[in-house]
Amino acid sequence: MRIDVLSLFPDMFAPLTQSMIGKAIDKGQIDFNVIDYRQYSHDKHHHVDDTPYGGGAGMLLKPEPMFEAMDDLNAQHPGAKRVILLDPAGRKFDHVAAKELAQAAHLVFICGHYEGYDERIRSLVTDEFSIGDFVLTGGELPAMMMIDATVRFVPGVLGNAESAATDSFENGLLNYPEYTRPAEYRGMAVPEVLQNGNHQLIAQWRLKESLRRTYQRRPELLDQLDLDAATRKLLAQVKREENTRQAPDITDSRLQ
Amino acid sequence: MRIDVLSLFPDMFAPLTQSMIGKAIDKGQIDFNVIDYRQYSHDKHHHVDDTPYGGGAGMLLKPEPMFEAMDDLNAQHPGAKRVILLDPAGRKFDHVAAKELAQAAHLVFICGHYEGYDERIRSLVTDEFSIGDFVLTGGELPAMMMIDATVRFVPGVLGNAESAATDSFENGLLNYPEYTRPAEYRGMAVPEVLQNGNHQLIAQWRLKESLRRTYQRRPELLDQLDLDAATRKLLAQVKREENTRQAPDITDSRLQ
Repeated sequence: MRIDVLSLFPDMFAPLTQSMIGKAIDKGQIDFNVIDYRQYSHDKHHHVDDTPYGGGAGMLLKPEPMFEAMDDLNAQHPGAKRVILLDPAGRKFDHVAAKELAQAAHLVFICGHYEGYDERIRSLVTDEFSIGDFVLTGGELPAMMMIDATVRFVPGVLGNAESAATDSFENGLLNYPEYTRPAEYRGMAVPEVLQNGNHQLIAQWRLKESLRRTYQRRPELLDQLDLDAATRKLLAQVKREENTRQAPDITDSRLQ
Repeated sequence: MRIDVLSLFPDMFAPLTQSMIGKAIDKGQIDFNVIDYRQYSHDKHHHVDDTPYGGGAGMLLKPEPMFEAMDDLNAQHPGAKRVILLDPAGRKFDHVAAKELAQAAHLVFICGHYEGYDERIRSLVTDEFSIGDFVLTGGELPAMMMIDATVRFVPGVLGNAESAATDSFENGLLNYPEYTRPAEYRGMAVPEVLQNGNHQLIAQWRLKESLRRTYQRRPELLDQLDLDAATRKLLAQVKREENTRQAPDITDSRLQ
């Protein structure tokens, strides 16, 4: 996979190359490149922004530098691309989108600065994504985040020990509570069932606590699932437990 | 405002200090600090993770380093804190949350690595936030994003030219299309109304196109608004236009 980022702040991407994607670059799985589109500005002060038509505060990114940067990129890499713009009006970026983008041969991320950009820049774009209803100084941080989430699904990038398949969302549920040593810490104990080593009981407990946490905190996720009969029964049990008593929530198991 | 981040990768935060928050630090508005909690690990290899109780792939963050890092922080800065953990089960981070966090005197971000952490770490936390239904290598990128979105609302951090008040979401609508020079570029023209300089018509056009974009792409946002009579009328007009013809969407105004 090839990833190009169009940004005015190429140095911001240094952290990304130090982490997982750095290893993927070293192994030749990802060809990662940041293009400073300021180099496509032709006035002597290298301006990339200008005042808005119709008035108003703030400056807008001019169309020319972005179009010319894309011209160059298309000349050098003529194949199909997914050209991604971060915009609050875009499709919500999620697990499914990350998996989908991981299938592409070439991704291009356009990082605007959120004071705004000339509307015509949108015509270069194949995909608009939003990472949430909030405003940021620039598109660099969300682009890095999307790249991190996406590259995890490129085959071979994650090792076995950190398999994407066991992550939250892979089965549509929130993860169950996890514990490591010590068995007791500051009065909080690891649940007995996890310490006794019966694999079947542990698997059952984990599924039940996944269902419980999802039911407590993200019940809408359950509506999207096609659960088997045994899991539906377990979910019904969780619902009864949660609804018929003044339920100590699962965090209380830590406090026993 | 004081912001502390607990992270195993303090170098990842360099980009943040170079941008807006860097200026806020220089002006004394933000006291920003990253704590490498690996220094609170006491075994000779400075391990911060261990295998999960009950088996399974991946390693979990141990409780001790995080608890001891918080002990130190509480000793040095005894006041009230909002201690934030990034977790898919958390409250959705948005514009409203950013404004709310900007009121706090002291924010602490705990950056786990998403292989997982010991459940007891949650007992240190006052706020769990999610930035979306996807999985990342670590909490550093979303923490930076939340800090960027939050610091914008700390009084005095943003200059007038980039006032947070004119951003998307401030009025609950998506932003209208914006244009800068040139008036025509590669066959795409700036809408006539923005070029003719009648402020009243421009304001009307912008509100209408904000309503249109929101109606087209995020209609659920409209349900949360208490619109005045004139705006409701304009919205009704947008809906008629969008529903009664094979509507060329607003992007087509670029192509006339």
